[in-house]
Amino acid sequence: MDIDTVKARSFCEKLFQAYGFTDEESKIITDVLIKADLYGIESHGIHRLVRYHDEIKSCQVDVNAKMDIVHGSPITACLDGNKAMGQLVGRQAMKVAIQKAGSVGCGMVSVRNSNHFGIAGYYSEMAAAEDFIGIAMTNTEAICVPTFGSEAMTGTNAIALAMPADPCTFSYDAATTVVPRGKLEVYSKNNKPLPDLWALDKNGRPCTDAAAVINNIIHKAGGGIAPLGGTGILHGGHKGYGLSVIVDMFCAVMSGGLTSNYVNRQPEHTGICHFFMAIDYGAFGDKTAIRAGMSKFLQELRDSKKAEGQSRIYTHGEREAELMAQREKGQIPVNEKTLEEMKDIAGELGVEFNL
Amino acid sequence: MDIDTVKARSFCEKLFQAYGFTDEESKIITDVLIKADLYGIESHGIHRLVRYHDEIKSCQVDVNAKMDIVHGSPITACLDGNKAMGQLVGRQAMKVAIQKAGSVGCGMVSVRNSNHFGIAGYYSEMAAAEDFIGIAMTNTEAICVPTFGSEAMTGTNAIALAMPADPCTFSYDAATTVVPRGKLEVYSKNNKPLPDLWALDKNGRPCTDAAAVINNIIHKAGGGIAPLGGTGILHGGHKGYGLSVIVDMFCAVMSGGLTSNYVNRQPEHTGICHFFMAIDYGAFGDKTAIRAGMSKFLQELRDSKKAEGQSRIYTHGEREAELMAQREKGQIPVNEKTLEEMKDIAGELGVEFNL
Repeated sequence: MDIDTVKARSFCEKLFQAYGFTDEESKIITDVLIKADLYGIESHGIHRLVRYHDEIKSCQVDVNAKMDIVHGSPITACLDGNKAMGQLVGRQAMKVAIQKAGSVGCGMVSVRNSNHFGIAGYYSEMAAAEDFIGIAMTNTEAICVPTFGSEAMTGTNAIALAMPADPCTFSYDAATTVVPRGKLEVYSKNNKPLPDLWALDKNGRPCTDAAAVINNIIHKAGGGIAPLGGTGILHGGHKGYGLSVIVDMFCAVMSGGLTSNYVNRQPEHTGICHFFMAIDYGAFGDKTAIRAGMSKFLQELRDSKKAEGQSRIYTHGEREAELMAQREKGQIPVNEKTLEEMKDIAGELGVEFNL
Repeated sequence: MDIDTVKARSFCEKLFQAYGFTDEESKIITDVLIKADLYGIESHGIHRLVRYHDEIKSCQVDVNAKMDIVHGSPITACLDGNKAMGQLVGRQAMKVAIQKAGSVGCGMVSVRNSNHFGIAGYYSEMAAAEDFIGIAMTNTEAICVPTFGSEAMTGTNAIALAMPADPCTFSYDAATTVVPRGKLEVYSKNNKPLPDLWALDKNGRPCTDAAAVINNIIHKAGGGIAPLGGTGILHGGHKGYGLSVIVDMFCAVMSGGLTSNYVNRQPEHTGICHFFMAIDYGAFGDKTAIRAGMSKFLQELRDSKKAEGQSRIYTHGEREAELMAQREKGQIPVNEKTLEEMKDIAGELGVEFNL
């Protein structure tokens, strides 16, 4: 079913206030969540409220945490999230990166001891909104099996990059796994076999049994999802594997935090790490000309010849921007189960449920 | 057959001197070429001499070109290669990036009007050799078809990243296409059908006929290679497509040069663009601790559980380093046809052929 976007936003803000977050903090967390729903990325939207609820209750998220900058230079910072809510850490860290880009042309912030921060694209787009290139990455609990391996060692390890352009910001946001875990869950619910290249059983063999793979992931019994490029090396799985290592390098190794293979291994500490970067592209030449060059290239991609049966070539971020324009003052879809969960959480926190 | 590495190096240097390059320039170009052979990346090694020969003769490469820095800041530069040999441009640009990283922590150099520069990993590893993180990217002639398209719009658009670690530098170097063109040529020679996900015919349909795809590429008749993730979106082809756009953004849009869809469209000008970055990772914290963290993570990946039938998990750059140790003071393989081509070029330039 669909719920009113404005009401959903207001409801979420009240929930987060009830946990003890300030009004401003609640607005930020809600904004990240709702943006995922506006963009059509339901897996990272209000669907996730119940998981945040559990993380706050189990003290993985510390509502009162204050972040520290533990190391810094004019262009870099290392930030300790001290178990704060990932969205607050992410927003703060990207603000630092943007500030540095504004003053010296580039800012990079590596973050340790954070939590799940929602969609990576939210943060890269913060930089694009200030007319900078923005990059955001995050590691996660290990779910991705390295090429020739049988044990998940890296996370979904998303990379997001946004660059201002007209009429629509280029906004790339993708896991370095072939698919996110949510896709496996959809196949499992529908009792459909997985495509050959997506997943591996506990012996590292390609596996099309979605329920078995998910069960192994939950019980850390081995196997998991293949990197972008799929199982083996025939379709470049070693490339996706390398990209996932690069994400852990920027997020966890630079910050001295936990690499994916250690994330979520302790009851009260996820240890998720992020990386943020902002670049003032005016440092390379005339800003207007560069932005126009990007817009022209993207338009040429959209205008290039379509495959048989296709009417449109998208550039990254275009589809999401169109969906947001529709949904922002209208409604967002939510499934019945999520709505039930929201009702229960509201009851537990004494917040009026009016969706 | 195999040829002596030291002799091959000396022969190549003499060839480049005969074109009019200085001794030092000839050494640099040769070093990039031979490194590809030492690493087992034959497609980018001396096999390519004949192509460089043609590019120099047709004035796509200007032997006497001097590069200009056309825009700069303490952390950035925009460099015009003025049609110089790609290896010379690449080495010079990465040196500028490294210098900036040494003085302010980070250097980024975007380059226009260059030529084919060999393996991208050569340049990222230059930074790693100075104990920095190095990144190198390049666009190429369009060969990659965007998701839902039928016309090649981006190049093989490689991304390389190197980070110092012990006992072996992490060195990622990969095209953002599912495979390079050379792989299609091998299938064509052997009359083998291509895997389903690799290529598209001129109508944008998946195509397993290697010879037909290559013919279409040569005649710019439509179709081409799929981005990493393959044809369509099922296995994440839109992710590889996005990565290839990002490479063109850093290389061509930032420098005001030609995006892949314009590269190699004029007889005397390839217009290839590159991007280089060096990061002093000591700007994030204690350098020894960060390097040790990277080494530990890579070792954990190598030590993680192997898939059934596999005895080893590699980290990126490991296999190449081992091969180089073997070949550096020994021999490199070269096929008969390449050897014949080298003999012909030597004859044309009046250089003694003694391999």
